Amino acid sequence: MQVEAGALLQNIIYPSDLRQLKESDLEEVCKELRQYIIDVVSVNGGHFAASLGVVELTVALHYVLNTPYDQIIFDVGHQAYGHKILTGRRETFHTNRIIGGLSGFPKRSESEYDSFGVGHSSTSISAALGMAVASEYKGETDRQHVAVIGDGALTGGMAFEALNHAGIEKSNLLVILNDNCMSIDPNVGALKEYLTSITTSKSYNKFRDDLISVLAKISKNGPDAYGWAKKLEQSIKGTLLKNANLFESLNFRYFGPVDGHDVNKLVKTIEDLKHIPGPKLLHAVTVKGKGYALAEKDQTKWHAPGLFDKITGEIKKSSSDKPKPPKYQDVFGYTLVELAEVNPKIMGVTPAMPSGSSMNIMMKEMPTRAFDVGIAEQHAVTFSAGIAAQGLVPFCNIYSTFMQRAYDQVIHDVALQKLNVVFCLDRAGLVGADGPTHHGAYDIAYMRCVPNLIVSSPMNEEELRNLMYTSQLEDKGPFVIRYPRGSGVMLDWKRPFKEIRIGKGRKLVDGEEVALLTFGHIGNEATKALSILNSEGIHPAHYDLRFAKPLDEELLHEVFQKFSKVITVEDGCLPGGVGSAVIEFMSDYNYRAQVKRLGIPDSIVEHGEQSELWDICHYDAKAIIEECRKMAKAMPTDAMVS
Amino acid sequence: MQVEAGALLQNIIYPSDLRQLKESDLEEVCKELRQYIIDVVSVNGGHFAASLGVVELTVALHYVLNTPYDQIIFDVGHQAYGHKILTGRRETFHTNRIIGGLSGFPKRSESEYDSFGVGHSSTSISAALGMAVASEYKGETDRQHVAVIGDGALTGGMAFEALNHAGIEKSNLLVILNDNCMSIDPNVGALKEYLTSITTSKSYNKFRDDLISVLAKISKNGPDAYGWAKKLEQSIKGTLLKNANLFESLNFRYFGPVDGHDVNKLVKTIEDLKHIPGPKLLHAVTVKGKGYALAEKDQTKWHAPGLFDKITGEIKKSSSDKPKPPKYQDVFGYTLVELAEVNPKIMGVTPAMPSGSSMNIMMKEMPTRAFDVGIAEQHAVTFSAGIAAQGLVPFCNIYSTFMQRAYDQVIHDVALQKLNVVFCLDRAGLVGADGPTHHGAYDIAYMRCVPNLIVSSPMNEEELRNLMYTSQLEDKGPFVIRYPRGSGVMLDWKRPFKEIRIGKGRKLVDGEEVALLTFGHIGNEATKALSILNSEGIHPAHYDLRFAKPLDEELLHEVFQKFSKVITVEDGCLPGGVGSAVIEFMSDYNYRAQVKRLGIPDSIVEHGEQSELWDICHYDAKAIIEECRKMAKAMPTDAMVS
Repeated sequence: MQVEAGALLQNIIYPSDLRQLKESDLEEVCKELRQYIIDVVSVNGGHFAASLGVVELTVALHYVLNTPYDQIIFDVGHQAYGHKILTGRRETFHTNRIIGGLSGFPKRSESEYDSFGVGHSSTSISAALGMAVASEYKGETDRQHVAVIGDGALTGGMAFEALNHAGIEKSNLLVILNDNCMSIDPNVGALKEYLTSITTSKSYNKFRDDLISVLAKISKNGPDAYGWAKKLEQSIKGTLLKNANLFESLNFRYFGPVDGHDVNKLVKTIEDLKHIPGPKLLHAVTVKGKGYALAEKDQTKWHAPGLFDKITGEIKKSSSDKPKPPKYQDVFGYTLVELAEVNPKIMGVTPAMPSGSSMNIMMKEMPTRAFDVGIAEQHAVTFSAGIAAQGLVPFCNIYSTFMQRAYDQVIHDVALQKLNVVFCLDRAGLVGADGPTHHGAYDIAYMRCVPNLIVSSPMNEEELRNLMYTSQLEDKGPFVIRYPRGSGVMLDWKRPFKEIRIGKGRKLVDGEEVALLTFGHIGNEATKALSILNSEGIHPAHYDLRFAKPLDEELLHEVFQKFSKVITVEDGCLPGGVGSAVIEFMSDYNYRAQVKRLGIPDSIVEHGEQSELWDICHYDAKAIIEECRKMAKAMPTDAMVS
Repeated sequence: MQVEAGALLQNIIYPSDLRQLKESDLEEVCKELRQYIIDVVSVNGGHFAASLGVVELTVALHYVLNTPYDQIIFDVGHQAYGHKILTGRRETFHTNRIIGGLSGFPKRSESEYDSFGVGHSSTSISAALGMAVASEYKGETDRQHVAVIGDGALTGGMAFEALNHAGIEKSNLLVILNDNCMSIDPNVGALKEYLTSITTSKSYNKFRDDLISVLAKISKNGPDAYGWAKKLEQSIKGTLLKNANLFESLNFRYFGPVDGHDVNKLVKTIEDLKHIPGPKLLHAVTVKGKGYALAEKDQTKWHAPGLFDKITGEIKKSSSDKPKPPKYQDVFGYTLVELAEVNPKIMGVTPAMPSGSSMNIMMKEMPTRAFDVGIAEQHAVTFSAGIAAQGLVPFCNIYSTFMQRAYDQVIHDVALQKLNVVFCLDRAGLVGADGPTHHGAYDIAYMRCVPNLIVSSPMNEEELRNLMYTSQLEDKGPFVIRYPRGSGVMLDWKRPFKEIRIGKGRKLVDGEEVALLTFGHIGNEATKALSILNSEGIHPAHYDLRFAKPLDEELLHEVFQKFSKVITVEDGCLPGGVGSAVIEFMSDYNYRAQVKRLGIPDSIVEHGEQSELWDICHYDAKAIIEECRKMAKAMPTDAMVS
């Protein structure tokens, strides 16, 4: 839905229009921009609080800098709504996150103002440094490179790697620390406490000021004291000023903290910083959700609230009164606590996703046994490995897409040592509106090539519970359970636990002609397809593989001995996926069936509703029906075979 | 070869023996331990300088701590030779890195004293924290957990993630920073400069001492000055002492710097630290190669020098006088400079492996265009993406095994945005003596599932050159070139460049009955096999796939139309590998050949010579011969097919 922009904002199509305004107009621009975000997001959905928090920063940056020649990278990208609205995309902003519409994140192919795509966090300093080094090499010494990074994103290790490198380069790099003490959930870690300490009244800066004033007073006490004071001052200049601040320790010039909502002060400061060479950090203190009182008060809830009434703040529920199956996330959260109540060895670990993963349930019930380690997937995995090395059983819950960050740790610290870590890969498969940066497309392929891993996926809530139950029995070794974003299919999900034999699939429906082999929740699309196919007189068999590794060889022998036509279905990439595992088996045992693999094709899948994307990628019920019809109709043929 | 230990060392089988000695004996123990390492490594090979640098630390730790109940993690593990010798493995230490012998790294399955395996760097703090948290939960409050981490390893982002988390836990964790300004090559980055600054004479500690003495003197000047001094002292205590040090910024109590070669001082310090709760960091300054003058002087050369005469320091060359083909590494290094001289867009990036990868050649020739970014693979990839975003062509050289660290960055920052980064995956395939932590086993599988990537591998030096040449022409998008550790096969390798069509393989030998499809250098094993097979009257065809992605579909149609028996050979894991890609093709086009895939099996491959491991894993010339014989003899059979 389109909404109307305020009087000033209406005339801003590109930042060049913004730059025509007087500085005294900028406060009003910020007000209008903030209102515009509220107006659009309340009726269209999307991320909310983060972009409200950086309205002034966004306006100030585009006002002072010569974008797009000067380059801004927002980290993470969900704070970039204001940026999008100011850079030619106000009129299309209502299509945000809708299929065919704007991406919810900066995207190079969408606008030249989006200098670098950022969906995952903590990448901006590396990217901006690369850009700065390249500009310098190309002789573009006037070009500005700005990374706007949240304090949560700063805890991601690669941000530190980048700071460490940037500190020895002389390139023109400005890091703006958007410090709001939040990522999606409240930010954690020592760094957060440190940032708080330097922004409170006993701040480093105030201390520095005090010290200088003390020195001035001491120096009045006579020549001896003066001498000492001088010496002291030199010491301070030589050591303290250089090293006293974490960022200055890393050769960054530190400025701030400044009020991130004072647009005029920001304009002046950024203008000044343009002329200071080398790596520098501006510490801006902001409020996530700024300007929308409810969002300021409960920032986690308002991170991406869905649709809401902007006046009352009422968040709109889906209209159906029918009871809905629970989200897999909640099944995970409640089941984990249920298991942990019985098994004292169970611990919980999440890298900054307590509410998203529902690990917050255990964190609340058993605070000493569940850990939010910050945006730090690598650490989360090896920390879990350390816990497992002491004989405990950590459940480490990481979104599939973020597990890419900890791939080496899964191999090197867990699989190689065969430690009993349970990896719950949330949001596996296509995730929907978050789009290509967040799709959990590759995990089956990148996990099943690693020795010692068990790779499983539940078709419904009960299966998730039973896989979780199984994973914590005895010493099972590393155990991966992948499940998608969103709801399952069972209302009556809280059933007694049953152990599942490792590597054991199940036959759901006996049939003829064609065998459907599905992996995980997407198997429910096959169930839907079957009811239609059966009415047409086509009766495929349906097997739930349940494990991509180890494969159920007994089941597969049965399948390939009985069927010459097989369809595999997975919510994961086709190259190297579970369908690929099935044909590896077929080839190894020299079976010769016709196999059609359905899954995510070998190309970038854009954003849209999950169901829309399944349709486009051709592995929903409709696709399964179509492929079954084709196979059932076709004569058993050896065409194309030499 | 066995060597004799000194008088004290002879009687130390386990640390409990060490603990029987008087403190005054420890210096002598260190001397004997150091000599023992020199004696064994000089005749057996292995890592050298790192373990010499931590002799005193190792002795002090095992003397003070109650190992193995107390837990030490060496990061990285190649500094753990002294630890191995003191913990029941002196008698077998001469089997270090030899097939069936000791691992060159700590290994949980080898000894209960190896509390955590560390081959890749920067993992120790995460693991130790996990252990500490678990111990605390289990009520083992007296248990000590120590991470010994090099200053190079500390630049790896996950170490920072762990510090950030540890700073808010109250667990009993001691991090010992082994600061020698080196990783394998000289350590780089702002952190290194910072550590240097606090260990030089104007150190933070000296400053702190000075300040305290100044305050004492000022306070003698009368009540007014005393008042100011008090105020200053409070300020300092409240702010400076808390925040002035990088580690204290992260809530660690910082101790040091101490002389890492004063064993008695170390014993006293570690004893004291045992009784201080919470996270603490001891900064020990050491010299890599300590006690062997040549190694102290050229630490990179003596990181792992091979065999040498311990008296003269002469490093033993392989005995053959015959000219040998160059290492792939050197072909890479020289070719990169050759290309960069013509193409000004080319830049070079290495994460702390300049000498190992031969990026040092470009760093020397073109210092403004080649970057060592420290042990920071994630940053290296996204930094390269930033460079590519400005229209340049970075060659980012990362060992296959370390690329696992930057997997998300390859997907999210490079592939998704289709940026023109050339990834040179050095040491792809089985690497030999470094063993399971370092094998580059998985890259074909984890790369070929990612859209937009080109995944290639050269069979020889000329092919490597041509692939590198091709990758920097026009805008090719992300381009992976994987090649193994060690020498190629061509003496006359420096031939003029030829462009290779993307996704184009080549037929090397026409044949009948069986087609061999090989990928990369391992194809030379097929060449060897062919000469023997031909003499037996077996004439397989040989195709060099050259690209795992995109596959050469034209070539594969030819193969499957002509051959009903196919053998694929790769120096990579079988699940999801290039053989798997070939059978995906076969299945998609409904061909029905018998395919035997040779490559790394789905299990952990231990250390040993490359050729020994190829033999064990059954994909060397011998294996190829065997499989060809079997296939050639077998009747075209449909056995086992329903």
